[in-house]
Amino acid sequence: MADSVAMRDLEELKQRQRAFVAARDWQRFHSPKNLAMALSVEAAELVELFQWLTEEQSAAQDAGLRRRAAEELADVLWFLVRIADALDIDLLAAAEDKFAKNEQKYPAERVRGQARKYDEY
Amino acid sequence: MADSVAMRDLEELKQRQRAFVAARDWQRFHSPKNLAMALSVEAAELVELFQWLTEEQSAAQDAGLRRRAAEELADVLWFLVRIADALDIDLLAAAEDKFAKNEQKYPAERVRGQARKYDEY
Amino acid sequence: MADSVAMRDLEELKQRQRAFVAARDWQRFHSPKNLAMALSVEAAELVELFQWLTEEQSAAQDAGLRRRAAEELADVLWFLVRIADALDIDLLAAAEDKFAKNEQKYPAERVRGQARKYDEY
Amino acid sequence: MADSVAMRDLEELKQRQRAFVAARDWQRFHSPKNLAMALSVEAAELVELFQWLTEEQSAAQDAGLRRRAAEELADVLWFLVRIADALDIDLLAAAEDKFAKNEQKYPAERVRGQARKYDEY
Repeated sequence: MADSVAMRDLEELKQRQRAFVAARDWQRFHSPKNLAMALSVEAAELVELFQWLTEEQSAAQDAGLRRRAAEELADVLWFLVRIADALDIDLLAAAEDKFAKNEQKYPAERVRGQARKYDEY
Repeated sequence: MADSVAMRDLEELKQRQRAFVAARDWQRFHSPKNLAMALSVEAAELVELFQWLTEEQSAAQDAGLRRRAAEELADVLWFLVRIADALDIDLLAAAEDKFAKNEQKYPAERVRGQARKYDEY
Repeated sequence: MADSVAMRDLEELKQRQRAFVAARDWQRFHSPKNLAMALSVEAAELVELFQWLTEEQSAAQDAGLRRRAAEELADVLWFLVRIADALDIDLLAAAEDKFAKNEQKYPAERVRGQARKYDEY
Repeated sequence: MADSVAMRDLEELKQRQRAFVAARDWQRFHSPKNLAMALSVEAAELVELFQWLTEEQSAAQDAGLRRRAAEELADVLWFLVRIADALDIDLLAAAEDKFAKNEQKYPAERVRGQARKYDEY
């Protein structure tokens, strides 16, 4: 888009979404319940790209695959930011909290090598 | 976490993830195929919070619900940033492209009110 | 299809799938991992039909919606039977076991009315 | 369960579900929209079992994995039969229709070997 400026951060994305949604009168569709459904559908569209590929193929950096993946990732990000806005949740603060929890839950010295988390089912 | 500093942006999240994953030797599990699966599983855990609630209940800003939703959103963001890193995709640039496409696909003057996108199935 | 006979049961579906897959040499794609991904993608396509509808609209028995839902349900059933075959799991026996567990987990006299399961999050 | 009789078919599962749900007064939660969400969540729990496994590991017929997979498959089947009931859709008839479509969409002589469906993304 000729006159677009680069998206700077999640805050800008949130603000631009609000304008986009309001201009279309789509707020009434955007309950957290519905947005969660839409988010999961976009995540599934990402999964679909990889379902018949081997892990190696999925990591092969094929140009066509990366382009399609970028679109699906953008869709996931879209609804992620939108639902965070609807629930008034700060995504980066939530990520910060999650980091602290994961550091405690998976101490490097204990899970390293054996990769416990990944071996149990 | 007492000594944590606030997460500034997606770039910082990506860099901290890389260190976290490397310290645990988890790279070998993180093919795009596997990360897409994990992303969709986290999205489903968000859906699970809302599946038996009405839309109104989902939007009621209940404190317990918001706290649990924040955790799931953080998990989705985690794998979203991780898979974008694995595929070398710039999330904000992808979001920018998606905005341009959506502006064309859903012109405000045409979809407003009738909300075409939401009425067709 | 003029000469098709009605599918009698899950066993017949399984047998016909095996022939269908073998005739196309698709076995190598059908690891349980891949089939689980495909199953979840089909489930998401079902979710997509309902994501912007109210619960009432979803239950309105619209002919077009029912036709599309039938296709998605068939796709889910397809991969469900296929993965059960790959893992040598008897679906009806598993359903029987689940019934017994759910009877114990949710005693009618205790959950009735208050619907505990559905109120907690 | 000592006095259980083997589940014979999907029709019996549907009838027993109806009694189970009615005894708990859970009908009001079971709109097609909600049931589709629940179905996708159960599908994701299946995906979770396999997300960090290789395809080979997923096919290794490990006893613990098969037992957990059987539970998740039963949960998927549960909601699949339940939503089909809610929408008055005959699952086996839908599977029959899907077979006819797939025979036309993927003619064995054309897709065999090259496995076109699985190579495109």
